[in-house]
Amino acid sequence: MTQLEEQPTAKETPLVPIEKVVALSKRRGFVYPNSEIYGGVAGIYDFGPLGVELRNNIRRYWWWSMVQLHDNVVGIEGANITHPRVWEASGHVENFVDRLTECANCKRRFRIDHLPEENWEQKKCPNCGGKLGEPRNFNLLMETYLGVVEGERMKTYLRGEACQNIYLDYDNVLKSSRVQVPFGICQIGKAYRNEVTPGNFLFRQREFEQWDLQFFVHPSEMQQWFDYWKEFRFNWYHSIITHKDRLRFRPHAADELAHYAKQAFDIEYRTILGWQEWEGIHWRQDWDLSRHSQYSGQDLSYTDPITKERYIPWIVETSGGVDRTFLNLLLDAYEEEPDPSGRESETRTVLHLNPMLAPVKVAVLPLQKNKEELVTTAKTLHKKLQRLMVAQYDEVQNIGRRYRRQDEIGTPYCVTIDFTTLEDQTVTVRERDTTAQTRIHMEELPMYLLERVTWK
Amino acid sequence: MTQLEEQPTAKETPLVPIEKVVALSKRRGFVYPNSEIYGGVAGIYDFGPLGVELRNNIRRYWWWSMVQLHDNVVGIEGANITHPRVWEASGHVENFVDRLTECANCKRRFRIDHLPEENWEQKKCPNCGGKLGEPRNFNLLMETYLGVVEGERMKTYLRGEACQNIYLDYDNVLKSSRVQVPFGICQIGKAYRNEVTPGNFLFRQREFEQWDLQFFVHPSEMQQWFDYWKEFRFNWYHSIITHKDRLRFRPHAADELAHYAKQAFDIEYRTILGWQEWEGIHWRQDWDLSRHSQYSGQDLSYTDPITKERYIPWIVETSGGVDRTFLNLLLDAYEEEPDPSGRESETRTVLHLNPMLAPVKVAVLPLQKNKEELVTTAKTLHKKLQRLMVAQYDEVQNIGRRYRRQDEIGTPYCVTIDFTTLEDQTVTVRERDTTAQTRIHMEELPMYLLERVTWK
Repeated sequence: MTQLEEQPTAKETPLVPIEKVVALSKRRGFVYPNSEIYGGVAGIYDFGPLGVELRNNIRRYWWWSMVQLHDNVVGIEGANITHPRVWEASGHVENFVDRLTECANCKRRFRIDHLPEENWEQKKCPNCGGKLGEPRNFNLLMETYLGVVEGERMKTYLRGEACQNIYLDYDNVLKSSRVQVPFGICQIGKAYRNEVTPGNFLFRQREFEQWDLQFFVHPSEMQQWFDYWKEFRFNWYHSIITHKDRLRFRPHAADELAHYAKQAFDIEYRTILGWQEWEGIHWRQDWDLSRHSQYSGQDLSYTDPITKERYIPWIVETSGGVDRTFLNLLLDAYEEEPDPSGRESETRTVLHLNPMLAPVKVAVLPLQKNKEELVTTAKTLHKKLQRLMVAQYDEVQNIGRRYRRQDEIGTPYCVTIDFTTLEDQTVTVRERDTTAQTRIHMEELPMYLLERVTWK
Repeated sequence: MTQLEEQPTAKETPLVPIEKVVALSKRRGFVYPNSEIYGGVAGIYDFGPLGVELRNNIRRYWWWSMVQLHDNVVGIEGANITHPRVWEASGHVENFVDRLTECANCKRRFRIDHLPEENWEQKKCPNCGGKLGEPRNFNLLMETYLGVVEGERMKTYLRGEACQNIYLDYDNVLKSSRVQVPFGICQIGKAYRNEVTPGNFLFRQREFEQWDLQFFVHPSEMQQWFDYWKEFRFNWYHSIITHKDRLRFRPHAADELAHYAKQAFDIEYRTILGWQEWEGIHWRQDWDLSRHSQYSGQDLSYTDPITKERYIPWIVETSGGVDRTFLNLLLDAYEEEPDPSGRESETRTVLHLNPMLAPVKVAVLPLQKNKEELVTTAKTLHKKLQRLMVAQYDEVQNIGRRYRRQDEIGTPYCVTIDFTTLEDQTVTVRERDTTAQTRIHMEELPMYLLERVTWK
């Protein structure tokens, strides 16, 4: 593994144990185990009130920068269920498999690509030392059935990767959107995989969400667009994290590359589990459109409106995980630090989330809850801010505790209404990371906050 | 069917044939049949570049008004796959069935609740007059399997309605979100049903999207919150449509009500197919939480923090369709009218979408594409607006045609850069519905537009 680009040598910051983020996620309403009252389902999660706000912000920022700001990129949203032939054309029915081995003694099953090399070479179980059996293939596609009448039911699959809809809709997009090669189609959507070993919280789930760009180019422009998107996507992730030294490219080795791929890169993020894939930048050439042309019988070639050249466009793919972004951002943002005020002996837990992605943008806090004027002023301000951004009102316990609660969920600004407010209409704005406080006039507050929490 | 409230007697406007909207949707990139290159899958659709923008706006507006503006409402986002016991507790495994009959002669199958009454009474096929057979039950849940190893696979279901996740997460939300009864949980998400007769475009699909509010109350406050949400939801739909006379309440008849329901209302919208359900306002009492308590063994009762009273909260549910909203909005907005300029003999097709929901907010048009200064000025303005809202740039064909293209997709504002612009920095802003034109200074344009296309 080599790093393609020199990373800044930032100070080594401690990597956060996953368990800390799992606990925070459940305690504060970011993520819950799915169907927990029924004992849960391995590898499936629900997102709580703060989780869904964070996810929505992540998705919107991706969409804004990928689709809204690129004249040559449009979006689609395809269904989770497609025609079964799609998965034959894509190769998933044949090749989307995990190779498993079972221990003859303890009966535990292992993915061969996850086994320590020496165990597999010696066919020894890493659990009990028993003998490992011959490998068998298990397909990861989740099946379902369309139609209710026996004999007419059609077996199909929940999509194993979201991007297939982009190829399916490519021709319709061309005909309906006035785009011309080079152009791209983006999508955010669910994918489903019967992972044998789901785990590490959101990192490997059985139901998860992907964001994809498929960018269609003339073969002669493949390299330039590959380089453009590789750079763009790296910078995008770079812009939303705090620990810049935890991000890198990993070029795929020759034996990892698909036969049609000249090159490929993973954008990786370093967690306590090591370097892990966050997004893939793939050189897909004409593979996908050619396969779908062949399997569907529909000609998916493109005619250049000027030169009249007819060809199957090549594809640059950038494919990342919404859930991995969510998890990496929490791991990146989480910090336990000594209380900066020195007034409390507690640790301060703070999520240093980028303000534009933070689930709650501002908390409005009356200094005391038993002073009607403070409370009324705070509630009025809260109502006003709430129309512009996600805003909380909190009057419970002392200001220090209220700051801590907001720090822990990553709220970038706390606004306190105190007795000076009643005199001169200024409020105290306290910033999460520095804990610095500034007095701002209430009239100026909405713009002050919007400038700091909105992408523009 | 009675109308609960007097509707305004607006002028009778022609109802739009579904086919017109289907054709526009495909031609301009709102909706495509899923997997069309493989012949399609009945009842499953993909959303194109304009469709996904419209859907996102619809969802954001719902979320903003339901979650962001209500202090006592939070959101979640649950998985599509849940534990199978959920669907036993909910009653779906037992009761989520269509009753079908088959004609002995032509072999066609019919849903009994969709058959004309006289056909079913006489057991005569409406297609060929043949004899209809005994009714049989078909469950609408789509099944799938978790796990890859035979004998360990768990049969479960894609969620037949999205709202179940809210009951599953109710206890976690209570523990993590500092909410207290009365409070609500909102969710937008997919549901899946093996409809025997999908049809009418997006109206009855096999994969579709719902938005739900489950609002938890003390039994003594049930009626007041039922009334609040019933009113709120009606006004919400009322605010986003043009033809106010096409919206009404339909109270459920006594024999339609669930045994626990004191009352229920559908909010209906009138299309060329007649009055159709858009959203249901349901009195669910303690049914859902009691069932899940019973099936899961988890006590889902609530203890009032002040009175210490312990009880299962009652639920007001508001449950509507995102896809039905999408379809109804297109049917509501679509109009073919004589060209208002009189200069062209063509019909003007226009989507009178609410500006805040329209997929494209503004189009920037240089008067001529062969004048470099016009083009440069227009492109610079477009780049600036694009960061704030979805903005198109179009220089192809004459201004009249470009206006028509934007009218057809519902773009509320077209901004033309002409020779006066180069002199005094003003642009022509042309409004979609009235086709009225105003000159605005370019500096003032972003705020002028934002005020008209943003909810606030």
